[in-house]
Amino acid sequence: MSRQALLDNILAKQSFLCVGLDTDINRIPAHLGDMEDPIFEFNKQIIDKTADLVIAYKPNTAFYEALGPAGMQSLKKTIDYIPDDILVIADAKRGDIGNTSRLYARSFFDYYDADALTVAPYMGEDSVGPFLEYPDRWIIILGLTSNAGSQDFQQLELKSGEKVHEAVLKRCAEYGSADNTMFVIGATQADYIAEIRKIVPDHFFLVPGVGAQGGSLTAVAEYGLNDKVGLIVNSSRGIIYASDGEDFADAARLKAQALQSEMAQILSTREFV
Amino acid sequence: MSRQALLDNILAKQSFLCVGLDTDINRIPAHLGDMEDPIFEFNKQIIDKTADLVIAYKPNTAFYEALGPAGMQSLKKTIDYIPDDILVIADAKRGDIGNTSRLYARSFFDYYDADALTVAPYMGEDSVGPFLEYPDRWIIILGLTSNAGSQDFQQLELKSGEKVHEAVLKRCAEYGSADNTMFVIGATQADYIAEIRKIVPDHFFLVPGVGAQGGSLTAVAEYGLNDKVGLIVNSSRGIIYASDGEDFADAARLKAQALQSEMAQILSTREFV
Repeated sequence: MSRQALLDNILAKQSFLCVGLDTDINRIPAHLGDMEDPIFEFNKQIIDKTADLVIAYKPNTAFYEALGPAGMQSLKKTIDYIPDDILVIADAKRGDIGNTSRLYARSFFDYYDADALTVAPYMGEDSVGPFLEYPDRWIIILGLTSNAGSQDFQQLELKSGEKVHEAVLKRCAEYGSADNTMFVIGATQADYIAEIRKIVPDHFFLVPGVGAQGGSLTAVAEYGLNDKVGLIVNSSRGIIYASDGEDFADAARLKAQALQSEMAQILSTREFV
Repeated sequence: MSRQALLDNILAKQSFLCVGLDTDINRIPAHLGDMEDPIFEFNKQIIDKTADLVIAYKPNTAFYEALGPAGMQSLKKTIDYIPDDILVIADAKRGDIGNTSRLYARSFFDYYDADALTVAPYMGEDSVGPFLEYPDRWIIILGLTSNAGSQDFQQLELKSGEKVHEAVLKRCAEYGSADNTMFVIGATQADYIAEIRKIVPDHFFLVPGVGAQGGSLTAVAEYGLNDKVGLIVNSSRGIIYASDGEDFADAARLKAQALQSEMAQILSTREFV
């Protein structure tokens, strides 16, 4: 999906919401347990009830991998089921030497046919390069993450005066362009988003951490929006586990709708729509 | 597997060799193509011919993931086939926020039953913690990798005077202990191994990059050995693709034997055996 197509979707739906499909077999409603593929059935109902409100879905691959090959079948079916005009982000945080990253690209872009893949930056340029050879696909590189452990290395100060995550953003922005590269910037790090926006003014940010992890949508939007929106905000647990009953998909829709309404308001205030 | 059991194996086999099972469907001998599971069949023959020479196998998960769920079946069958006294390292370079790393742990330690998992450090302590809750399992954290891109961030100098990879080693050594944590230190970085050994004197290093990537076993051993050996040296392509004919497993054995002989010599010179 091109950057223009993504922006067009955002403006048409008045939404920059991504729903994280962190579908845990131990947390889905009991009545799905007897179905042939409970994980896919859960996702299918969530997608049916939220597709008009979102511009991206983000299956977190760990939840599928935990179930072995059968889980990967559920992942494949889920991605195939997502409407074509919605961005599919495989949240897998991969990255390895070039010949290995090439295989990860084959997995996520050829086999699973995701539009975007989250990537860990520690191994540098040749670990990222193979993903950029796929036209109209995206890599989303970890910049400043939403968890407590982001203090351990991402916030260390370099001799140059920059923080490690700032050097990562600057250097990784050179690997590709704003047309094929986004960055993960945690919503719990709203204080930093204004600074980060100066370093990478044009790139889209994928922002996790709104909801269960405590980040604020208003703060993220205030500092993170750029002149082409430049934000995809993800909520996972806060939406998909809104209810553990048979009404789970309707409950998820209500949560998604609340976020989408806030987003429509923000986009209107900022005169995008 | 405990550290003592690993050391006992090394001394008994006079080997600290790991064979990397980077099994690429496009590179295995043509005559395997008609079998039901060519990837497993290839691995099975490699294992049959090398198990007495090695103390670890390291399937690189990217090569299995590239084939979708069927590839993950081949991975499972391969791990199940490896003799119990040989360390199985799932080379997956995972790492995410705590609730997600917990799912990766479930995948690799419960479902696939690997003894060890490679882990990316960028997200810090809570991204690593869930893996350490499994007794007798190992995490192997990326320290200084063997690829050119290791220059981009791992070698940056911090305000403290340390390099980023040095801070990573020091901090990650505190997450667990030398009984459940190893580090990936590339063989192409032999110049640095002596310095790294001072920072983490007791930990095992998993050293890739000997062979196809150009690293030298002698240099690695000279600077990397500690008083409990502390080295696992991996070779992948140099061994498993030694021949592309029907003799591939015999050819792999010869390559593995050459490395094991060198290792036996080194262990003898250093008076371990």
